[in-house]
Amino acid sequence: MVDARQHVVIIGGGFGGLEAAKALDGPDVDITLIDRVNHHLFQPLLYQVATAGLSSPAISAPIRHILRNQKNVTVILGDVTGIDVERRTVSVGHDAAHGKYGYDALIVATGAGHSYFGHDEWAPVAPGLKTLEDALEIRRRVLTAFEYAEREPQRAKREAWLSFVVVGGGPTGVEMAGTLAEIGYHTLRSEFRNLNLDRVRVILLEGSDRILAAYSPELSDKAKRQLEKLGVVVRTQSQVSHIDAEGVTVGKDGERICARTVIWGAGVAASPLGKQLGVPLDKAGRVIVGRDLSIPDHPEVYVIGDLASYTGPDGKHVPGVSPAAKQMGRCAAGNVLLHMHGKPTRTFRYKDYGSLATIGRNSAIAQLGKFEFSGFPAWLFWLFVHVYFLIGFRNRLVVLGDWAAAYWTYERHARIIIGNEEIPQQDLRCRM
Amino acid sequence: MVDARQHVVIIGGGFGGLEAAKALDGPDVDITLIDRVNHHLFQPLLYQVATAGLSSPAISAPIRHILRNQKNVTVILGDVTGIDVERRTVSVGHDAAHGKYGYDALIVATGAGHSYFGHDEWAPVAPGLKTLEDALEIRRRVLTAFEYAEREPQRAKREAWLSFVVVGGGPTGVEMAGTLAEIGYHTLRSEFRNLNLDRVRVILLEGSDRILAAYSPELSDKAKRQLEKLGVVVRTQSQVSHIDAEGVTVGKDGERICARTVIWGAGVAASPLGKQLGVPLDKAGRVIVGRDLSIPDHPEVYVIGDLASYTGPDGKHVPGVSPAAKQMGRCAAGNVLLHMHGKPTRTFRYKDYGSLATIGRNSAIAQLGKFEFSGFPAWLFWLFVHVYFLIGFRNRLVVLGDWAAAYWTYERHARIIIGNEEIPQQDLRCRM
Repeated sequence: MVDARQHVVIIGGGFGGLEAAKALDGPDVDITLIDRVNHHLFQPLLYQVATAGLSSPAISAPIRHILRNQKNVTVILGDVTGIDVERRTVSVGHDAAHGKYGYDALIVATGAGHSYFGHDEWAPVAPGLKTLEDALEIRRRVLTAFEYAEREPQRAKREAWLSFVVVGGGPTGVEMAGTLAEIGYHTLRSEFRNLNLDRVRVILLEGSDRILAAYSPELSDKAKRQLEKLGVVVRTQSQVSHIDAEGVTVGKDGERICARTVIWGAGVAASPLGKQLGVPLDKAGRVIVGRDLSIPDHPEVYVIGDLASYTGPDGKHVPGVSPAAKQMGRCAAGNVLLHMHGKPTRTFRYKDYGSLATIGRNSAIAQLGKFEFSGFPAWLFWLFVHVYFLIGFRNRLVVLGDWAAAYWTYERHARIIIGNEEIPQQDLRCRM
Repeated sequence: MVDARQHVVIIGGGFGGLEAAKALDGPDVDITLIDRVNHHLFQPLLYQVATAGLSSPAISAPIRHILRNQKNVTVILGDVTGIDVERRTVSVGHDAAHGKYGYDALIVATGAGHSYFGHDEWAPVAPGLKTLEDALEIRRRVLTAFEYAEREPQRAKREAWLSFVVVGGGPTGVEMAGTLAEIGYHTLRSEFRNLNLDRVRVILLEGSDRILAAYSPELSDKAKRQLEKLGVVVRTQSQVSHIDAEGVTVGKDGERICARTVIWGAGVAASPLGKQLGVPLDKAGRVIVGRDLSIPDHPEVYVIGDLASYTGPDGKHVPGVSPAAKQMGRCAAGNVLLHMHGKPTRTFRYKDYGSLATIGRNSAIAQLGKFEFSGFPAWLFWLFVHVYFLIGFRNRLVVLGDWAAAYWTYERHARIIIGNEEIPQQDLRCRM
């Protein structure tokens, strides 16, 4: 009824794409998995790279190494520049001659990047955290800020180097703020001669009236108090109206916060590849998929993970988290095979196992159905879950070892500044 | 007789500068150690970062962390742009206002970089290996080359991506060539679908008539045979006359080798800071120092490590290796104190404990005085020595663990490509 071996192209080697590839193991199909980076990234621990707790290879592994024993997968490193759903081709790079891959079925799993809400000029001064490059850039800025403070004789300038603003009270912003406070108040304590590290300020700015809004108000409140215990200044209802190299402006009355390091954790925008499919997108640029995760009029094209906008039969919108991406990957892979064999496809049903957010040393919040807990037990649970799901036995051991060492000593072993561009001394346009 | 606390500035936190700082611990002096990077680098293992065997933090540690308990040291991250030996000041960065450090004694230990023998245009196409940035750039190029080969349908172009040329048969060139062969022939074996990895070529080009010329001809010959056993093509008396993005040209008759990855291990040039001292330099730009490592007319200025050109009382020139830099650091520190107390300074005497060079898996050569050995015993000895001298208990454990894992599995855990610039497809100007 069908050709013996059909060709499935998967774009993206994140949680969704990788899971889809694994679910398509076997004699039915040949798979080409295309990603613009060579590694699968365990994004939930990316903030640890940004804060020098883990090195890059501890939370990432080459996609082709993960799939080395699955002989029906060819992994291609390349930037997908076009999708032609009519001709069923995917273009890689800018080389029209031989950068084209035809497909019988396509799974698009390219995820999401940052959104600066129309203020792309903020990107260079307030990097976000989505890729290893992002994490290493933030690590460089954070570590360099302390170095510049150490050699800065003017008090106001020095304190601007010691001020860190995190924009956005979602999981990334909360993790970053909590860990930055640990670095400033504990890790670096005995290492500087000219700095009073009590002057370190970590300020978390959230536009709405509470942080971690996906959780219950009680857990939000607990998270806020745990952050404050770590030394973070948490400011809700604080909308950022301007960011430049010397700080941020908050609210309509233009309050100015001097800070040479600003980290963006506020907005998420779906991968621009969604537009190439020529189907309706939601406000965040995500592709609105049908009940089986395929797109309208193209039962052979599936969109999964953070790029997909999907509302289940229960009326709930599926959140952009890794368990959802994995479940979608398995569902889409199954539907590719069902469709290929002329059978009806399955409706995607998201199974929500609960949510976890870490705040910092010994602090986390957990929401498992109706069951909520926080503090040290939640942190231990978070640790266990994250190490468990980390790909690769070696990485698990390394991460556990690094964390055990960091826990007892407060030390962070990856405090290496790579890329040493001179940051110009500027005049501070701040009231201090 | 002297001021209670004099100020010593040390430029450079490598083996020499760090050892000098440690030797100056105590109540006699205040020390400012200035480096343009924040970390001490264990350079002998840098090739492991370049070949994805180790992550950057495994072989480096923040200088201020290493010296955190030595309270008389202030560590400054900064680029030294000038030394004024008359006014006794060191300038950092381009900020004249407050980037100046006065000194009573100065130790310059800024080491060496690459020399392209007047062909600086080769630098972008043939990176050398001196810093972590260099190592990560080489790692990126090597890993990306295999990725581009996998998606290249034209045979000649594909084979150019699978060809690796290492220029220079010194220790760095030999380590790189041996490890590249291991990656091509073993590590990546099961991971590519379109590539025949038997087509991988690793070519080591040496201008003189033998590799590792600092060793005896017998050991050179053994090293050559060990490299060939690993699959490296070793070509001596092969002078490179041209390098571009597509390959190298060898010798006068212009033989062309097509290779998209070229690594430079040939020339070393002393740090340009030596010129600032206004004293005679040798041909390689090194500062010719006196018997106590100070410079002419300035008994308060010392030059140590790879930047120093020193011929001992035995008539032997001290080589640019880490044990020599450390010994010089201790000697210069002692002489700073002796001079300060009005006592005669000591003559530097280099104690040569022998030389070790690794070639690859199970292969190394060792020359300890008159005692020479090679192969697996030399490799084990090399391993022991390098792990022993690595700074930091954690790093030793991590490196040992990574090596044990790599040894049994041939896997290299740091195979992460960071920075994904599109390499343009070019027409190969090669005979193939």
